[in-house]
Order: sequence, then structure tokens, then C-alpha cells
Amino acid sequence: MTVLVPYPTLLDTVTGVFRARGVPPDRAATAAEALCHGDLTGTSTHGLVNLTRLYLPLFDSGRAEAAADMAVLADRGASVLADARRTLGLWSASQAVELASARAARYGVGVVALRGATHIGCAGYHAARAAAHGMVGLVASNCGGQRIAPAPGGREPLLGTNPLAVACPAGDRPPFVLDMSTTVVPTGRVRAAARAGEPIPPGWLADEDGTPVTDPTAFDRGDGRLLWLGGAPETGAYKGFGLGLLVEVLAALVPGAATGPLSSVSRDDDIGVMALVFAPSALRSGFGADAAALFSAITGTPPLDPRRPVTYPGWREGERARWRRVHGVPLPDDLYEELRGIAPGLQAVG
Amino acid sequence: MTVLVPYPTLLDTVTGVFRARGVPPDRAATAAEALCHGDLTGTSTHGLVNLTRLYLPLFDSGRAEAAADMAVLADRGASVLADARRTLGLWSASQAVELASARAARYGVGVVALRGATHIGCAGYHAARAAAHGMVGLVASNCGGQRIAPAPGGREPLLGTNPLAVACPAGDRPPFVLDMSTTVVPTGRVRAAARAGEPIPPGWLADEDGTPVTDPTAFDRGDGRLLWLGGAPETGAYKGFGLGLLVEVLAALVPGAATGPLSSVSRDDDIGVMALVFAPSALRSGFGADAAALFSAITGTPPLDPRRPVTYPGWREGERARWRRVHGVPLPDDLYEELRGIAPGLQAVG
Repeated sequence: MTVLVPYPTLLDTVTGVFRARGVPPDRAATAAEALCHGDLTGTSTHGLVNLTRLYLPLFDSGRAEAAADMAVLADRGASVLADARRTLGLWSASQAVELASARAARYGVGVVALRGATHIGCAGYHAARAAAHGMVGLVASNCGGQRIAPAPGGREPLLGTNPLAVACPAGDRPPFVLDMSTTVVPTGRVRAAARAGEPIPPGWLADEDGTPVTDPTAFDRGDGRLLWLGGAPETGAYKGFGLGLLVEVLAALVPGAATGPLSSVSRDDDIGVMALVFAPSALRSGFGADAAALFSAITGTPPLDPRRPVTYPGWREGERARWRRVHGVPLPDDLYEELRGIAPGLQAVG
Repeated sequence: MTVLVPYPTLLDTVTGVFRARGVPPDRAATAAEALCHGDLTGTSTHGLVNLTRLYLPLFDSGRAEAAADMAVLADRGASVLADARRTLGLWSASQAVELASARAARYGVGVVALRGATHIGCAGYHAARAAAHGMVGLVASNCGGQRIAPAPGGREPLLGTNPLAVACPAGDRPPFVLDMSTTVVPTGRVRAAARAGEPIPPGWLADEDGTPVTDPTAFDRGDGRLLWLGGAPETGAYKGFGLGLLVEVLAALVPGAATGPLSSVSRDDDIGVMALVFAPSALRSGFGADAAALFSAITGTPPLDPRRPVTYPGWREGERARWRRVHGVPLPDDLYEELRGIAPGLQAVG
């Protein structure tokens, strides 16, 4: 069963939880919006379920700093290198996109590379900020020193699930927002299936011989290897692994953050983030209209099944968010009770 | 059977072929190197096989200009928008990377976006130029107005195979070079199987119901749909499609080139290209050593099969190129005879 909670109530509640930990008000509000974005858009593996499991424990263990200031280490105009100093990644990644957007407005392109970051939540939330400015945003994040998926042909986990997001305006349609792990699925999808006691489709996990593993509990037992996008070698495993490396290079090697292959401890500390923004309107006129026409043509392409129109990544999430902003955000009963445990004032829809 | 041709001979021959079409000497040499790169590294679908099938017909039909100059349309320092004016993409894409590298040296990041380009060959060849400067290079190209692969759930082809390449130095190892179509395979792999009369693995083509098609001739008959990286929806088709859109946005929408969904004719004219270069050394020290350590750790990870060490994209191609530069480039008999037909002076090894 689910409970419907008004979106503003949810935002206020989570903002209050972060403020109670000492996070300054404006940062707390941004972090709350970033976290609620998962539940607002239906990407619940990256939403409020992580508040008590991931973000609050970061404060408890001293792995996140509530009120530290980011430190700019180098500034070349179009590019900035900064140390996020363990501030909430839910906030620092958005700050990075905003600064990159400001630089892009001047130079046509802007890059902010962070080291010392913490978990950023939905990468697409941050990338979409650039689209709201009429720009194209790209956000890549590695998983710090954490090793999750092995290289093709490798025995041990090597890299994280290394998310990559891109966002582009689409006129009056929801923005194009691709928000993906470079593995077939993020670990959250596997663990959600394990908690639900449900099998997973072939193609997510495999044993050492490449035989599909459909028991999601095999992953945390070490009996199922998380596959890279593309699956088997003949259908593009090296592309998915290569995209994982692309993220590792942009997000971690450029700023000098931790990386799985070189880290002494497999833990997601010292995460690297790259925010990259293009401002096409600094180079030419007509970008906004062209973008609207492109995404309109995509949703207008004839579907195989007339009842299922073609969409693009971000369309469904955008439509879902629009409904939920008005009518409320559905939360599973147990998550609702969990949140009430830390914020007793939380109330569902009348 | 194959014939071994000395690499310098091959380069001279192809340079001569382009010069005979009126391409200025320096451009002809670059274009020849870009084209021979396919055969040098073993990516033969994007190599000399395309000289008589793709590039020379572009001149014959007036779709490429041998000696036109690119026109800069806008310059914001870190970013440049240019019209490639139908010059050989084999050359213009490299020029774009060189200019982007020069801008990156100053601003930390450099972008050159081209409209009006022609087919660029191996995107990885161009991206690797940035790695040779100790920088990180990314090259994306759409297929102009050509429609090849349908959207997931769509009936008609919509986008091209939209290649994406990234390159990063790796110390004294071959550079990391990921060079991929965003579909499971490029069309060249399907057509090569069709010419050879061999079946293709399940996962490259599917019929409208998603059933695998293993007859490669089905593609050009319109009976087999080229799949996006990720394959089926539950294993990430939307990610591959999203990456195809990412390339369409960066390479075509940013500069205002042709795009499949909006083009009246499905043809690869007015191709869009983005060259994006990061110069980490403009922001911090230690990048080169960190990159060497990262890729060294990857090749050092324990393999499943002790006889098959783990590598990264670009390693195998780099090792192959090193051997072939010394000993010669193997060409299939029929391709060798075809080249001798247009360049009678071509001679094989000893």
C-alpha cells in the first residue's frame, strides 16, 4: 500500500531534517529537492529510501560535512576545479551545474569538476538545471573509491556503477533527461528486487562463465556479477565498460578524486563529479526552436503499437512529476512510517 | 587471403588519391591517415574499404568539396562554431580537435562544433589527437539527416548510428580510446556479415516484436531493425537510445546541423560534429601520472582466465597498430586489387 503526501509537505519535511543536522537553509532546500526528485519522478531507488540508509549515516559517521564551504582550487574562466569538502553531494552537484551554466553563458561552454564530493542522488536532477536555463547539461559522477563491477574478463570488482546524465530543453514538453548508470542497472534495482523477493530478468547479473543469474540476492553474496550496459561481449559489453571508464576519466581523473582501481578501501568517499554545460545560444540563434522541433518530431514518430506513443528519456518522468506536484507523491507505507519516525509532523493527503 | 602492405606506402598512396581529387596536400595527408587508421587498428569496417564506396563518390556527386575553407560562424574563446562547408570529414574532424585542444590549453576546456560536415571515418582517430597532447578528447558525430535505427517502440527509422569516441592518455601504454556507435553495432558490421554470407549473433537485429533476427541481409530488406546498445527494454534499450540522442544533441542540435527526425531526405549530408577537449593540466598537476596509474591498475586486475589479461578499449587497437606500423598492414586480396585499380603504383611487402 502507498500513502499520498503533498509535494510541498515532503520538501519541507526533508529540508527540516537536513537543517536539524546543521545544513544551512538554502543548501538544505536544494538537497531536499534533489532527494525528493527520485520519488517525484518515479526513480524511487534514488529517492527518500536513501535518507536513513545513506545520507543521514554520512553525517553520523563524519563522512559528510553539513556546513563546510567548497574550495575553488583553480579557475580558468570556462573551467573550474573545486574541492567539495564532503558537503552534501545532493547540493554540491547542483551548485556545480549552476556555476558551469554561468560560465557557459559567457564562454559557450562551462565545466566545474569536483573532488571530495559525497553521493549526489539522481544525476539527472542536477543536469536538468542546465535545461531550465535553456542550455545542455551533462553530469557525470564516479563512486569514489568504491568497486562494484568487474571489467569484462576480470575477476574482481573494479569500478562503480558510474552514472551519467544529460539534459536538453524540449520546448513546452518535459526536457530530455537521460539519467543512467553505465552498468545495465544500478545496484539499487538489484537490491530492491532482493528485498521484494522477486527474480530479476536475465541480463542484469551473470556468473563468471557469463551464465545469467536471476536471483538478486546473489549480488551481495558475491555470486552474481553486475554487467555493463551491452551485456555480453558480442552485444557491446566493452562499450558499457568503456562508458564506465569515460565517467571515471571525466568525473574522477580530471579533478583528481578517488578511483576504484587505485583506492585502498572500496568505499564511496572522495567522489568525483563533472558538471559540463553548453550554451548553444551563445554561439547561434534558433537553438530553442530547433530543440523543440526535434523532440516534437520524436514523440510524433509512428509507434508500433498505436496505444503506446514513442517518447524520449525524461518525458515519462516529467509527466509523472507534473501530476505528483499537484496531487501528491505516493510513498510506500513503510517508507512513510520511517519518515514519520524522524519527522513526526509529516502528514499524508487529507 | 590477405596481402601485407607497408604502412608508409599505404599512406602515400591514399594521400595521392585525395590529392588527385584536388585536396590540398596537408589535408590529404591527414585524411589518408584517418582512413588508414581503420586498417591499422583492425577496425576495417571504417577503413580503406570505404575509399571507393563512400569517400570518392562524395566528390563525384558534388557532396564533398576538396578545397573549400571552413568558416568560423562564432567564437567565444573556449567554444567555436564553424561550418565545415562539405570539406572531407576525415580532415575537418581532426582540425576541430586540434583547435579545441588549443582552446583547452588556455581555458581548461575547448569545444568546436561543426555543421556542414561529411563522414568523419573512425571518430576515435580524431579523439586520440587530444590524448597525444596529454588531454582528454571526446568526438561525437551524428549521421546528418540519415535515419537508420527506430526509437524503441517506433515503427520507422529515426536517428543514425551516432558514433561517440573518447580518448585519454595512459602513460606508456596505448591511450584509452573508446570508439563506439550508440547502436549495438554500426551498419558496417551487419553488411560485412551479409557480404560474407555469415549469420549475426542474436542481439544486433530484431523484428518488430523484438524477436532476434540473425540473417544480416534482413537489415537492408527492412525486415530487421538495428537495436540500440542495451538491446531489449529491460536490459537498457532506453539507455542506448538516450545515448544516441545525447550525440544528436551535442553533435547536431548544438551547431545546427541536419538531424534525422527533421530532415526531408534520409541522407548523410550536413553532418554535425562536436569536438570537446579537456586539459586537466590547466587545472591541476599530476594528471598524467594519475592517468598512467589508473590504466596500469586496470590491465593489472586479476583476469578470470590467466591467459587473457584484462584490457581497456584502445589497448588492443594500439598494440595492433604498433605491430602493423613496423611489419605492414594486412589487406584482403580483393581490397588490395581494388586499390591498385585506382593507384597502380601500390606495392605489397617484398
